[in-house]
Amino acid sequence: MEEIEIAFTHKTVSVLFDVNIIDFIEKQKLTGICILIDENVYTAHKALFVSYNPIIIKSGEAYKVQATVDSVIDEMLERGYDRKTVLFAIGGGVTTDIGGYVASIFKRGIKFNQVPTSILAMVDAAVGGKNGVNTALYKNMVGTIYQPDYILYDFSFLKTLPREEWVNGFAEIIKHSCIWDKEMFDILSTQTIDDYINSDANTKEIIKRNVAIKAEIVCSDEFETGDRMLLNFGHTLGHAIEKEYEMKHGHAISLGMIAAARLSEEINNFYSIEKEALLTLLENFELPVLFQFDKEAIWNGLLSDKKRAGDKMNFILLEKIGAASVVPIDLPQLKDLIDQVL
Amino acid sequence: MEEIEIAFTHKTVSVLFDVNIIDFIEKQKLTGICILIDENVYTAHKALFVSYNPIIIKSGEAYKVQATVDSVIDEMLERGYDRKTVLFAIGGGVTTDIGGYVASIFKRGIKFNQVPTSILAMVDAAVGGKNGVNTALYKNMVGTIYQPDYILYDFSFLKTLPREEWVNGFAEIIKHSCIWDKEMFDILSTQTIDDYINSDANTKEIIKRNVAIKAEIVCSDEFETGDRMLLNFGHTLGHAIEKEYEMKHGHAISLGMIAAARLSEEINNFYSIEKEALLTLLENFELPVLFQFDKEAIWNGLLSDKKRAGDKMNFILLEKIGAASVVPIDLPQLKDLIDQVL
Repeated sequence: MEEIEIAFTHKTVSVLFDVNIIDFIEKQKLTGICILIDENVYTAHKALFVSYNPIIIKSGEAYKVQATVDSVIDEMLERGYDRKTVLFAIGGGVTTDIGGYVASIFKRGIKFNQVPTSILAMVDAAVGGKNGVNTALYKNMVGTIYQPDYILYDFSFLKTLPREEWVNGFAEIIKHSCIWDKEMFDILSTQTIDDYINSDANTKEIIKRNVAIKAEIVCSDEFETGDRMLLNFGHTLGHAIEKEYEMKHGHAISLGMIAAARLSEEINNFYSIEKEALLTLLENFELPVLFQFDKEAIWNGLLSDKKRAGDKMNFILLEKIGAASVVPIDLPQLKDLIDQVL
Repeated sequence: MEEIEIAFTHKTVSVLFDVNIIDFIEKQKLTGICILIDENVYTAHKALFVSYNPIIIKSGEAYKVQATVDSVIDEMLERGYDRKTVLFAIGGGVTTDIGGYVASIFKRGIKFNQVPTSILAMVDAAVGGKNGVNTALYKNMVGTIYQPDYILYDFSFLKTLPREEWVNGFAEIIKHSCIWDKEMFDILSTQTIDDYINSDANTKEIIKRNVAIKAEIVCSDEFETGDRMLLNFGHTLGHAIEKEYEMKHGHAISLGMIAAARLSEEINNFYSIEKEALLTLLENFELPVLFQFDKEAIWNGLLSDKKRAGDKMNFILLEKIGAASVVPIDLPQLKDLIDQVL
C-alpha cells in the first residue's frame, strides 16, 4: 500500500493506493457505515458487498440527477443513519459525484470516503471534492465542494471494467497530459489502450501519475480561481456535446479537446503540428475525433455553462502541449469562431 | 447603522443593524443579483422590490422542501444567473433557510446575503449559517452550513409583521435566555409581547442582544460539537411536535422547552421554581404551555432526530436558568421519562 496526502485549505485528504476495500472497511470498525455502490460494480462483486446491505446507484449519467439524491436520502433516513454514519461511495463518476453530494447535505454533512472503480473516477471524478448532479438544461449545475477523508484505490475493480470504460477514462488522462505534462503526452503517444488493459503495472503507474497531477492542481486552487480552471480543457464544448447527444463523457471530452485545440490554433498560437499529434493520440486510444454537431444547439447549451461570466466565456486554450491558459472570449467572437473554425 | 462581525473558522460575516435594504443593494452596485423573497413580505413591500424581478418563495414551513429548492434553481438557470451572481434571501426562516441552501449548491456555491424580516429569522434562523429543507419524515434533514457575506437588519419590515409572528419569534428569545442569559430572562419576566410590538427601541435592543448571544455561541462552535448544541434546547421534542401537528415553530418550541424543563427537573437537578418561572414567562408571551400529544407518534418522530447518536439521544437540559448542558440519555430511559413525566 502506498499513501499520498492532498492538503486542501481546510482539510487534508488521504489517498491510499493498492488497498483492499473490504479489509479497509473491516479495519475501520466503524460503528455505522452506509455503502453507496454502482449497480454494475455490485453485480460484478456481489459476494464482497452483500452483507453490508448497500444502497445501489443505477449506472449512467441519466441517473446523476436530484431524483437519485432524493431517493438515496429517503433510504438513508428510513434506515436511521445518523450524523456519525460514514458513507462509502463505490463506483464510477456518477456514484462518486452522487456520494459526495449526499454526504455533504445529509444532516448538513457526514464523513465519507471515495472508492473510485473506473479509470475516469480514479483519475478525475473522485479527486478534488467537486460533486453534484445535472439539471435538465446542463451538467453539474447543482452541487458542493466537499472533501472525503480517504480516496481508496482498490485496483482489483478494474478487472471487471468494460473496455469502453477504459477508453472513456483515458480521455481525462490525455487531457491532463495536454494541460500539464508533456512527458506523459509523449509516453502515451507510443502506446494504445491495450498497453494498459493488459498491464497492471502500467495502469497503476499512469493512475498514480494522474492522481498526482490532479491533486497538485486542485490543492493549489481548491475554489477554482486559477489553475484548476485548466482542468476544464475540452469540457466547455464537451459538456454541451455530451448533454445534447447523450454521449459518454470521455467521447464528448475528446471532441471538446479537438475543438479547443482548433480554437487554440486560431487565436492562441498553438502549433498545427501539435494539434495533429493530439488528434492521433486520441484516435490511438479509440476516442472519437470526427463528429458533425448542430452548432446552434451546442451554442445554446454553452450559454448555460458555469464558466460563462456575463458576456464572456472563460475558455481553456493550449499554448503548447503541456501548457494551457484561461482565455476570456467575448460571446460574439466565440459564436463566430464556432461557426467558422469547427 | 451599527456593525458587528461574527468570526467563523473560515469566514467572517458582517452583521449590519439599521440598514435600509434598498440603499444597500443599490450601493453594492452588483453586476448580477438574484433576490429571493417571501411572498408575504413581497406583497407588503411590492413597490420596493418589483423592479428587481424577485423570485418569490411561498410562506410557511410546508414549502421548506426540496421541491421549492428545485424550482428556485430551475428559475435561476432559466434566467442565466452565473457564479458571480449574488443572492439576497429576504424573509422569515423558511426563506433564509432556502436561500442559504440554494446559494450553497447553485453551481457549487455563490455569494449571498441574509435579510431576515421576522423576529424569528432575525434572532435565530439567519445567524449561524445553518440552512436546509425538511423531508417527509423530519425537519432539516438535508442542508449545509454555509455563511453569508452579510446579515442585514432592516427593522422597517417589522412594521408589517403579524402579531402571531412576534409571538413565534419570542420563543427563540426566551430559549436564549434559558440557556445563556439569566439577566435577559429576568428582564423578559417583567414584560409582555406588547412591550416590544409597541416600542422600536425595546425591539432593536432585544434583537441585537439575541444576535450577539447566537453569534457568540455559533462562532465559538461552528460545526456543533460543543456549546452550539445548547441552542437545541426545546428543539428535540419541539421538532417532533412541530412536524406531527404542523404547529408554528415557536409554539412547538415553547412546548418542547416545557418538556425539557420537566426532564431537567427529573434528572438534572433543575429547580421546580425555575420551571414554573419559565412556564409563566412563556404564557406572558402568549406561547402555548399545555398540549396533550400522542406520545407514541412523537417518540417515533424523535428517533429520526439528527441529535440521536446510536442508542442515545443528546438532550439539552437546564441546570438553572441561564445554564444548560448536553445530557446523553439512553433511548429506553428517554422513552420511560416521556411516558411518565410528560
